[in-house]
Amino acid sequence: MSMKVGIIGYGNLGRGVELAVNVAPDMDLKVVFTRRDPSSLTIASKDVPVANISEAESWKDKLDVVILCGGSATDLPLQTPEFAKFFNVVDSFDTHARIPEHFANVDAAAKEGGNVAVISVGWDPGLFSLARIYSNAVLPQGKDYTFWGRGVSQGHSDAIRRIAGVKNAKQYTVPVQKALDAVRSGADPDLSTRDKHERECYVVLEEGADPAGIEEEIKTMPNYFADYNTTVHFIDEEEFARDHQGMAHGGFVIRSGKTGAEKEHNELIEFQLKLDSNPEFTGSVLASYARAAVRLNKEGKSGCMTAFDIAPAYLSRLSGEELRAHLL
Amino acid sequence: MSMKVGIIGYGNLGRGVELAVNVAPDMDLKVVFTRRDPSSLTIASKDVPVANISEAESWKDKLDVVILCGGSATDLPLQTPEFAKFFNVVDSFDTHARIPEHFANVDAAAKEGGNVAVISVGWDPGLFSLARIYSNAVLPQGKDYTFWGRGVSQGHSDAIRRIAGVKNAKQYTVPVQKALDAVRSGADPDLSTRDKHERECYVVLEEGADPAGIEEEIKTMPNYFADYNTTVHFIDEEEFARDHQGMAHGGFVIRSGKTGAEKEHNELIEFQLKLDSNPEFTGSVLASYARAAVRLNKEGKSGCMTAFDIAPAYLSRLSGEELRAHLL
Repeated sequence: MSMKVGIIGYGNLGRGVELAVNVAPDMDLKVVFTRRDPSSLTIASKDVPVANISEAESWKDKLDVVILCGGSATDLPLQTPEFAKFFNVVDSFDTHARIPEHFANVDAAAKEGGNVAVISVGWDPGLFSLARIYSNAVLPQGKDYTFWGRGVSQGHSDAIRRIAGVKNAKQYTVPVQKALDAVRSGADPDLSTRDKHERECYVVLEEGADPAGIEEEIKTMPNYFADYNTTVHFIDEEEFARDHQGMAHGGFVIRSGKTGAEKEHNELIEFQLKLDSNPEFTGSVLASYARAAVRLNKEGKSGCMTAFDIAPAYLSRLSGEELRAHLL
Repeated sequence: MSMKVGIIGYGNLGRGVELAVNVAPDMDLKVVFTRRDPSSLTIASKDVPVANISEAESWKDKLDVVILCGGSATDLPLQTPEFAKFFNVVDSFDTHARIPEHFANVDAAAKEGGNVAVISVGWDPGLFSLARIYSNAVLPQGKDYTFWGRGVSQGHSDAIRRIAGVKNAKQYTVPVQKALDAVRSGADPDLSTRDKHERECYVVLEEGADPAGIEEEIKTMPNYFADYNTTVHFIDEEEFARDHQGMAHGGFVIRSGKTGAEKEHNELIEFQLKLDSNPEFTGSVLASYARAAVRLNKEGKSGCMTAFDIAPAYLSRLSGEELRAHLL
């Protein structure tokens, strides 16, 4: 029988989850919850109802799992613990520094409700975390490197848009090829912030704004740009609309390890993602972990888990026999 | 308290496991079992006893886990089920086609003994299998590619050495860069055997042997070389001894997937290994799964498992809190 899935939040990520659930033969999307007036929201899945988030609890016995698609800043810290009382839940909480606190809150709520809650699954945290844990376990002597990009940083784009005279802006985080090459050589370089990533900005100015002043303000902005090599391109609205609407992203996790009695052998483990659509890919990861959450709960498990706590077989539709025959 | 570890078999892989166990602060190597006369074998760990494999059962209560380092052709099909009756065991059985049969035999023995047996962990099968299962679960619509090399194929080297007039030989499997590039472009090419890998042979001839005839015999050898672009280099013994003793290997697992309502987005997941020492790296993977086997058995689990059935946290020495704080 198919798993009955609900989605909370219908932005880019919610739409990505919807697509992933709809291609999974073992999952049925049953409802999308929104904070908006449900009648104002049209979703891609024509036959699926939209309900206000305030009604979610009344769906308690009608859903096997709920996938939370809100933001990490303000939505998920409240929503994940709240909904874990009533449902198996999955989120993509990605504020690394606050994960321990989020885990504790969600764990208490999920245990109270007898549900499984899987937090922080996406690609980073998520698949990148898996690359880090496996490569660290296998190569205890070594050094980790994570590079992000080429892809849009929403936070940096927002920071540019807050500057007076800026009409619109997109900021791309770009890994530095020379740094990647050095890491792959096994040289274990010490890399500064500036060495690892560059920042590329595409900016549309308001009429009469001062390009030189704005470029200076961007490049010297503390935390966001001052520690990086930053390039600023001023473009018109037409070019912005044509070339800078994509949601591509990606990155690299590399562990450069040593083995041998004299640590004389380099062993390089590299995991790489190149994504045309960050939200659709993240949605696909969330859907896989939703499958895992339902299965683990059926086995009697409850409480909060991360990708670290879940055996990979739980993510796949295939049986153990099929997995061993075809993917091992 | 440290885990008490035994090793069976002291070839290249056994020595690799020994190194990995000796750098793990939570593991103690307690014994190496050999089929040879124990007094004839000197191992790197000076204070560790060597015992004949026939005495292994008498170590039943003195070891937490035994790591099997024999070959997949004849050793492991017999040894893993035999030892799983008495110990938690880990092996790197890598004959893909016979894994279902091996799994069934080992599972019955491990359940009989109340032990955990982890089979087929190394890099392929092992870490490559993990890359395949995670990327297939996340991207159900897509295509898998596995490339091996650059590295030595023992089987192909042996096949060349069996030719009359050949004194010594090493064969390197080399992934074709053009094929890798095509896969990474998201074009989802259909690749023949010949498209994906080349075979590079370094051959030392016996005095008076016929180079042209031997080159022809290599290049047309069915199964081994006929379906590949093969290059043959004749070298002298000195060069062979100097340049062809390494045990480097590696490879690539790539899944090229599609997302979006019209499958219009490419999502590329790539996992890559570049290993200076194949046996030391494989030994490191085995040691990590030995840790997992002991922990799972302490939780009351028994029976046969693969990398698919084990949550990543079991491989790491770090606690859940440490893992979430540092690697998530």
